[in-house]
Amino acid sequence: MSWVAGVEGSGYGVHHLPYGVFRVGSGEPRIGVRVGDLVLDMAGAEEAGLVLAGGALRQPTLNAFLALGRPQWTASRQRITELLTDEAHRAAVEPLLVPLAEVRMELPFEVADYVDFYSSEHHASNVGSIFRPGQPPLLPNWKHLPIGYHGRAGTVVVSGTPVVRPHGQRPGPQGPVYGPSVRLDIEAEVGFVVGVSSPLGRRVAAADFADHVFGVVLVNDWSARDIQAWEYQPLGPFLGKSFATSVAAWITPLDALRHAFVPAPEQDPPVVDYLREEPHLGLDLRLTVYWNGEAVSEPPFAGMYWTPAQQLAHLTVNGASLRTGDLYASGTVSGPHRDQVGSFLELTWGGTEPVVVGGAKRTFLADGDTVTVTATAPGPDGSTIELGEVTGTVTPAN
Amino acid sequence: MSWVAGVEGSGYGVHHLPYGVFRVGSGEPRIGVRVGDLVLDMAGAEEAGLVLAGGALRQPTLNAFLALGRPQWTASRQRITELLTDEAHRAAVEPLLVPLAEVRMELPFEVADYVDFYSSEHHASNVGSIFRPGQPPLLPNWKHLPIGYHGRAGTVVVSGTPVVRPHGQRPGPQGPVYGPSVRLDIEAEVGFVVGVSSPLGRRVAAADFADHVFGVVLVNDWSARDIQAWEYQPLGPFLGKSFATSVAAWITPLDALRHAFVPAPEQDPPVVDYLREEPHLGLDLRLTVYWNGEAVSEPPFAGMYWTPAQQLAHLTVNGASLRTGDLYASGTVSGPHRDQVGSFLELTWGGTEPVVVGGAKRTFLADGDTVTVTATAPGPDGSTIELGEVTGTVTPAN
Repeated sequence: MSWVAGVEGSGYGVHHLPYGVFRVGSGEPRIGVRVGDLVLDMAGAEEAGLVLAGGALRQPTLNAFLALGRPQWTASRQRITELLTDEAHRAAVEPLLVPLAEVRMELPFEVADYVDFYSSEHHASNVGSIFRPGQPPLLPNWKHLPIGYHGRAGTVVVSGTPVVRPHGQRPGPQGPVYGPSVRLDIEAEVGFVVGVSSPLGRRVAAADFADHVFGVVLVNDWSARDIQAWEYQPLGPFLGKSFATSVAAWITPLDALRHAFVPAPEQDPPVVDYLREEPHLGLDLRLTVYWNGEAVSEPPFAGMYWTPAQQLAHLTVNGASLRTGDLYASGTVSGPHRDQVGSFLELTWGGTEPVVVGGAKRTFLADGDTVTVTATAPGPDGSTIELGEVTGTVTPAN
Repeated sequence: MSWVAGVEGSGYGVHHLPYGVFRVGSGEPRIGVRVGDLVLDMAGAEEAGLVLAGGALRQPTLNAFLALGRPQWTASRQRITELLTDEAHRAAVEPLLVPLAEVRMELPFEVADYVDFYSSEHHASNVGSIFRPGQPPLLPNWKHLPIGYHGRAGTVVVSGTPVVRPHGQRPGPQGPVYGPSVRLDIEAEVGFVVGVSSPLGRRVAAADFADHVFGVVLVNDWSARDIQAWEYQPLGPFLGKSFATSVAAWITPLDALRHAFVPAPEQDPPVVDYLREEPHLGLDLRLTVYWNGEAVSEPPFAGMYWTPAQQLAHLTVNGASLRTGDLYASGTVSGPHRDQVGSFLELTWGGTEPVVVGGAKRTFLADGDTVTVTATAPGPDGSTIELGEVTGTVTPAN
């Protein structure tokens, strides 16, 4: 039990403790940990000697702290829990709690490389059916490896950043047409933040997942379907994605998700050795996608075919190094039902089956639309953890 | 004329002046400018007050200097030229010249995002013919936009770094096979280094190319063709490329290439507005690919269908921001003839037509093979500029 009022049952209790970077007014960015509707100023806590992290908590981003590794992550977590639960620390800690309403959140870490996977069987099948009707929805490689590609790290933005409708080329009856995208979409995903690097030439085993990955952020990988459809052959998505990828302001530590690991779906055919994971575990995160405040879908992350540990093993099997701040996302999270999909492409079946939002028939995103993705996870003792939301509003093309 | 002996006619005369980062022994990395077979210690020059760049030349990478922009780039260049040509400076400058043989070169800049284009019509046609025989070699989008994708910035390495043969999945008769790549290849490319950033949501015009791009590096985008062939549908190359991309240690400033700009091939069909460039200019860089010291190909960069200015305009047309340290590469440089191709995939026509190297029939790379790519460009008054080479030796799979 925390001595901080209103924290228990809030989704941001002492079993959660996600990390972010905040500013107050025109102040410098500072590392904070969210508890209820308050931010514990970790820079202040380290300055006061309440937490020791060799100065890593007094940085403008989380990268230095992420680089420290699991023993330090766990030690800091235990210490913060002490500070927030033991009345003896109240007098010292209370002045370091800042109301969430008074802060502006920044991108929590400097993104090194950004990789996007494609690991929901339902999503990949839906997209295959929509784009390649009459053909097998999954390509032959899909069940043998977690398909992925690199995205643009420099356009990863923090939740709340406006998303400017991108210009680009799209297919037209007389050749390509240039202009603002007319099929702007979302992709509700779960991202994994790498803390501990690995050297070039070394493979990281799936079993070493928790040594390298610090935690989880919700991701919206905004996608211009018309630009993507015209450009993506043969080298994959490029400008259809690179204009913006939003991430939550709060990174939920893996330590907070101990109760959320669940058996992942069985894999058939069996995977090759480096992708074998024992036990084979997914995460029971339950996402909700809100379109202008209206819940339109509830994608279940537990059903993902490829797990985050398998994705990490695959990402490095060729000897690719990891850097602190690497971000890899799951790919769009879609369940088997229409009200469980993570993109509007699927929700409206390629725009052919509009849905009613705010009383109007809708397919893709209009200027002014706001999309918010939230998620919950089981915590200890029947409690629920609420992941930091990722939200964004579409603004007109420049 | 420089007072430095042996510099004129060396390919690294005072009209060239490429930037790099070097170390002597166990010393810290320092910025240097190459002149002949010497390195001018720019950190030392700035410390001595011989060049002024606000401390940007006293950094361990070139990023701070790259961020300063063209007026500062040009001013520094003029000042270095003065220092190396005016005898009056000899006494002050001579102690700052370090023999190349005494230095170890580092990655010259921290790579922000790495984008790889696919802009040689001959290369794209060759690859299409090899991978999709009987179909039109170019896909319908190819002449409408410069096809590109994001690569892994974290595995861009400096010339000379050993390249560990990657593991991965490749297609086999009974499904995928896992092991070291058996079709390891090169891609001889030309890379462009972005100095000046641009904000999210703003397009950079082709005409503003020289305001943003500092200079040019040779690139070898090592490629595991077997891994690539199995993984690349539908989201493009991933592990087949991300194990290593080598760049030259020396960045040749655009200012040194003023005499190398030549009319680019005519584009038909006409391109849409944002890709229009007036004048439409390529760069007359003449590459040579050496396989274990033997020249096997001479790819002509002047024939690239899409120019670097068009690539930059395309990269940002969706509002993607640029960061200092962004690197974009041209794609494999191939000319119309077999002895002008930039990959061994093409040189040996998918491995079906071996070439003789060192007296043996060869297709793809064997362990111990060294590949070096060099290039020359026309300088002023009939002189020749030699770009910094990019080299690497394949080491056995771990």
